[in-house]
Amino acid sequence: MAVQTVATSSDSTVDLGPAAALSCRECGHRVPLGPVFACEECFGPLEIAYDFSAYDTEELRRRIEAGPASIWRYAPLLPVPADVAEKPNLNPGWTKLVKADNLARELGVTGGLYVKDDSGNPTHSFKDRVVAQALEAARAFGFTTLSCSSTGNLAGAVGAAAARAGFRSCVFIPHDLEQGKVVMAAVYGGELVGIEGNYDDVNRFCSELIGDPAGEGWGFVNVNLRPYYAEGSKTLAYEICEQLGWRLPDQIVIPIASGSQLTKIDKGLQELIRLGLVEDRPYKIFGAQAEGCSPVSTAFKAGHDVVRPQKPDTIAKSLAIGNPADGPYVLDVARRTGGAVEDVTDPEIVDAIRLLARTEGIFAETAGGVTVGVTRKLLEAGVLDPAKTTVVLNTGDGLKTLDAVAGTGLTATIRPTLDSFREAGLA
Amino acid sequence: MAVQTVATSSDSTVDLGPAAALSCRECGHRVPLGPVFACEECFGPLEIAYDFSAYDTEELRRRIEAGPASIWRYAPLLPVPADVAEKPNLNPGWTKLVKADNLARELGVTGGLYVKDDSGNPTHSFKDRVVAQALEAARAFGFTTLSCSSTGNLAGAVGAAAARAGFRSCVFIPHDLEQGKVVMAAVYGGELVGIEGNYDDVNRFCSELIGDPAGEGWGFVNVNLRPYYAEGSKTLAYEICEQLGWRLPDQIVIPIASGSQLTKIDKGLQELIRLGLVEDRPYKIFGAQAEGCSPVSTAFKAGHDVVRPQKPDTIAKSLAIGNPADGPYVLDVARRTGGAVEDVTDPEIVDAIRLLARTEGIFAETAGGVTVGVTRKLLEAGVLDPAKTTVVLNTGDGLKTLDAVAGTGLTATIRPTLDSFREAGLA
Repeated sequence: MAVQTVATSSDSTVDLGPAAALSCRECGHRVPLGPVFACEECFGPLEIAYDFSAYDTEELRRRIEAGPASIWRYAPLLPVPADVAEKPNLNPGWTKLVKADNLARELGVTGGLYVKDDSGNPTHSFKDRVVAQALEAARAFGFTTLSCSSTGNLAGAVGAAAARAGFRSCVFIPHDLEQGKVVMAAVYGGELVGIEGNYDDVNRFCSELIGDPAGEGWGFVNVNLRPYYAEGSKTLAYEICEQLGWRLPDQIVIPIASGSQLTKIDKGLQELIRLGLVEDRPYKIFGAQAEGCSPVSTAFKAGHDVVRPQKPDTIAKSLAIGNPADGPYVLDVARRTGGAVEDVTDPEIVDAIRLLARTEGIFAETAGGVTVGVTRKLLEAGVLDPAKTTVVLNTGDGLKTLDAVAGTGLTATIRPTLDSFREAGLA
Repeated sequence: MAVQTVATSSDSTVDLGPAAALSCRECGHRVPLGPVFACEECFGPLEIAYDFSAYDTEELRRRIEAGPASIWRYAPLLPVPADVAEKPNLNPGWTKLVKADNLARELGVTGGLYVKDDSGNPTHSFKDRVVAQALEAARAFGFTTLSCSSTGNLAGAVGAAAARAGFRSCVFIPHDLEQGKVVMAAVYGGELVGIEGNYDDVNRFCSELIGDPAGEGWGFVNVNLRPYYAEGSKTLAYEICEQLGWRLPDQIVIPIASGSQLTKIDKGLQELIRLGLVEDRPYKIFGAQAEGCSPVSTAFKAGHDVVRPQKPDTIAKSLAIGNPADGPYVLDVARRTGGAVEDVTDPEIVDAIRLLARTEGIFAETAGGVTVGVTRKLLEAGVLDPAKTTVVLNTGDGLKTLDAVAGTGLTATIRPTLDSFREAGLA
């Protein structure tokens, strides 16, 4: 992949709040804020470096608590301008942290079990959080088109965010995507381009387009805006801790696609500790994959530091990244915190979706089935401690993956009479 | 329909907060709180009578503002116990009031246009608000099964609420409902019974079951718990005014199915005025129907006081009630406030869904297409004043009515090359 250097003219005047520079995760090389994602020195991934030095802990806490009921309450900790909440965007986040007592009973958890339910976001997945960051970066860099490669959730999130913000959008998807997903992405009125090929082909094409004059003025949320985009996942960490009363959970179970979400949640927790907003005490992070796409889980169990790519084959399409960019960092986090990475089969995913729905009334996407299924498996294996406060992420909405539970149906069919009702054994 | 008298033993000990009694909307006859819905004197509909006499305005306002980010911030104004927020329920409400500046520009509204977006509720429709009230009534009356007749949104809302609250649920639907809707309702694990017949047959059967020993201990949210259930719609009025800074909007556009939502929103606004929480000034309420099911709109235009039933034929299934119980009350409200009732065709509904999505990134259910479409029509006709603050309700989620916009699709299909991209005219 070609490494881009900073190309826009706006570098010196960029106001992205506390974001000070981009810093290479591998070699620490720093470059000014811009639409770049790979280090020019070592090709490592760039991420945001912040200047939080001016913050007083209690003043910051009050400022957050007085903020809006969205991710923008954490604007002082994100790469966004201070007045972000006044700009047209979807105001995602501040989703419910559901105390899941029924599920806890079924799973034998006594220390408190919570579901962080991101199906409550505007387009019903956690992607609204990350796209909202990329949008602000796109505004700061003077881009006028918002773009991405996607197989589903992201396409809708980008289309909706662009519409609201007054950006043109152009989203690339494999041409043979299910009709339902096409409709969900197309309804926002942006360009939706089918690429003859698979998701890898779509990605490769997007990388080419970024280097071409035709892609000028385009912000690809998950490519040239990736360092900004990825920071959105930190807000999950902030919200969980604030909703627990400014307290770290003991254990968090997080789905793994590229692995970015898990590593950024860890980054968010570390920031809260450094800022004094939560007490510094141990927490364990657990990664969850589908068996049909389990490169990180496989590496974790084998004790490897590198992740061997896999060809995905699972119903958990939103997690089906066979070569996860942040895989090695996920292994680091799981090992450093004393967590683990585990996977579950497709039938276990479906069972877990049903379990969560029937105990808590939450209809999760397949990714939520993966985290609940892995939670159950790790509890049974004695890896998760049932006496500890545990948070499980549901990152999407069951309405988007109805096929996964398509077997679910009527309990009975009767005539509209009491006799028929009794005959069916329902009385 | 048989009129039931209060049948449970819990009457004298019922704690439903400020709810003091049931009162007949027609003759004013009062009965104690119980699972009844029709007046024993005149067969009129019963509704909740409150005792708000102890409230101090500013103390009440502070109490509300310090309350949870859900409908339970308004517990002092609802038929629920004071500690309702601690009981297991889905905590619906406090959904976004979106300032729709892009849509306002397209429609020529200069006085401020807002979309109250109830797709943000737990099961993505306003039904979570009403079911949450019925659930508390069911708890108070000692019921153990939650039930309803439904053709979609309500089935999911009841299934989810019952699961979370630890109730058994048994929901009745026409046996030939679309598979997607069946899955959405069935996933929560309750009984889902298909009735061989249409929605009218389902309703008739439910009324029979209530009078039968087999239905003992059953709370039908939209039948014997209807007086409580209906009050949930008041929370839309409360939230809109609080989110506008404790101010009445000038104009509100509300969809009409049974008409209950519109009349209860008016009731909520009147309460806020009487309690001193908003300044008493004129507001206008507008009702929105689909042309294919427009009994109230037809009556309004003809100047009638009675509503002649229609056989529904529209894509707006969630509004397709041909004989709306509260139709005459809707006519009263529209006329009393200086509003109107209007309808739009199915193609206008689809256009309006697309318009809202492309301007604000909100993907509405067909019912949202009805309100946005009627808003546009009433603005063009000079009936809605573009210089006034206007709120439009979106009561559901586009993901549940994907078929309505199924024609929406790819802008282009290309090979994964820059040449192909240029040839398609996308550069």
